[in-house]
Amino acid sequence: MSLWQSIADNLRSEIARGLWPPGTKLPAEAELASRYGVNRHTLRHATRVLADEGLLYSRRGAGVFVAASPVDYPLGDRVRFHRNIELAGRVPGRKLDAVMTRPVSADEAVALGLNIGDKVHVAEGISMVDFKPVALFRTVFPADLLPDLPGRLRERQSITAALSDCGIADYRRVSTRVTARVADATQAVKLQLDPGEPLLRTEALSESGGRMIERGLTWWVAERVTLTLPHDS
Amino acid sequence: MSLWQSIADNLRSEIARGLWPPGTKLPAEAELASRYGVNRHTLRHATRVLADEGLLYSRRGAGVFVAASPVDYPLGDRVRFHRNIELAGRVPGRKLDAVMTRPVSADEAVALGLNIGDKVHVAEGISMVDFKPVALFRTVFPADLLPDLPGRLRERQSITAALSDCGIADYRRVSTRVTARVADATQAVKLQLDPGEPLLRTEALSESGGRMIERGLTWWVAERVTLTLPHDS
Repeated sequence: MSLWQSIADNLRSEIARGLWPPGTKLPAEAELASRYGVNRHTLRHATRVLADEGLLYSRRGAGVFVAASPVDYPLGDRVRFHRNIELAGRVPGRKLDAVMTRPVSADEAVALGLNIGDKVHVAEGISMVDFKPVALFRTVFPADLLPDLPGRLRERQSITAALSDCGIADYRRVSTRVTARVADATQAVKLQLDPGEPLLRTEALSESGGRMIERGLTWWVAERVTLTLPHDS
Repeated sequence: MSLWQSIADNLRSEIARGLWPPGTKLPAEAELASRYGVNRHTLRHATRVLADEGLLYSRRGAGVFVAASPVDYPLGDRVRFHRNIELAGRVPGRKLDAVMTRPVSADEAVALGLNIGDKVHVAEGISMVDFKPVALFRTVFPADLLPDLPGRLRERQSITAALSDCGIADYRRVSTRVTARVADATQAVKLQLDPGEPLLRTEALSESGGRMIERGLTWWVAERVTLTLPHDS
């Protein structure tokens, strides 16, 4: 085993054993290198590999930190935020910032199969895990199909529960698109992170009874949530 | 329809018609606002929505730009880079930077079901679409199962073809985990982008004949590739 590998394995096991809790800053490169009796190049190889694995991350100018264990969030055919988070043994929460009804935009009309001039309900807010923000969402629903939804959304913490109140007992994910962005200043404040930190952005479309009922954009804090994909076995 | 929405729809349609090609910088906020006869707040609402949709992106200090159309990359049970890119009507390419054989690391051993001391082949390189880099990859294979792989990898552009030469006619994706990172200086040079730009990171595990045969880490340029998920219909 090469030198950098045994250093990486050593650090990995120390992180797993909790010696370096999430958010801890690693000692300076020179200090760690001398602890292991190697040069900086070898040490950097080891920390680079751990960063690749997601165990460490570097903030430019600030140093190298131990990453928190992100929650696994499965993207299956029935994606439900509250259930997903509870299955991970964590506490789900949702803060609704705004519920409004407005004319559909051009791209929403295409996604939801609506006509220009049709109205949509829009729910915007923050998703939380263990009382910490993990995502921003903006979800859009066809208003004609769900006249009572805005009231229900204001009463309920969960979109699934509000939809159920409106007679949508079940709905299925039709498509999910995943990309990445960096947080802008507004997103950073709401998500309690620094601007420039990476976000996963998902665009999801769901149907019920042959009609598109929901189009959701979500911006996930990459450090706090890992999206996992279903593969049939 | 509100003012910001009609501005967003107008800009969206101009982008779709090619009046603002990918990479174009939008005129300054004040200029655009006066073109539409609105205040900056209304204009910013419109461009913010288009940024949310992925049509625009802002670079801190540099302005707002029209995003390139990313390639859709389906993450199904049989994920093949060359086939995926060809299905999108684009030209796939792969540049192999390094092929080596070394002892398995601790986390690779867990993923691949190997023992400490076992060897793995490692292939590192750059994936290209239309001769432009779109991703960095590091793929690891159990060496005992695939003794001839390094030679084949050097002969072939495609990992699928090299595996086929080694008798692996078919393999299936077992798990995919998706997160996001920002590009560091080394990644930025290889991917021809600026440090700090967002990357999608996937960690994929594949099996063939009941044995794990491949664990791949890939860092995708988010601006150039959108990951799409299969949902059964």
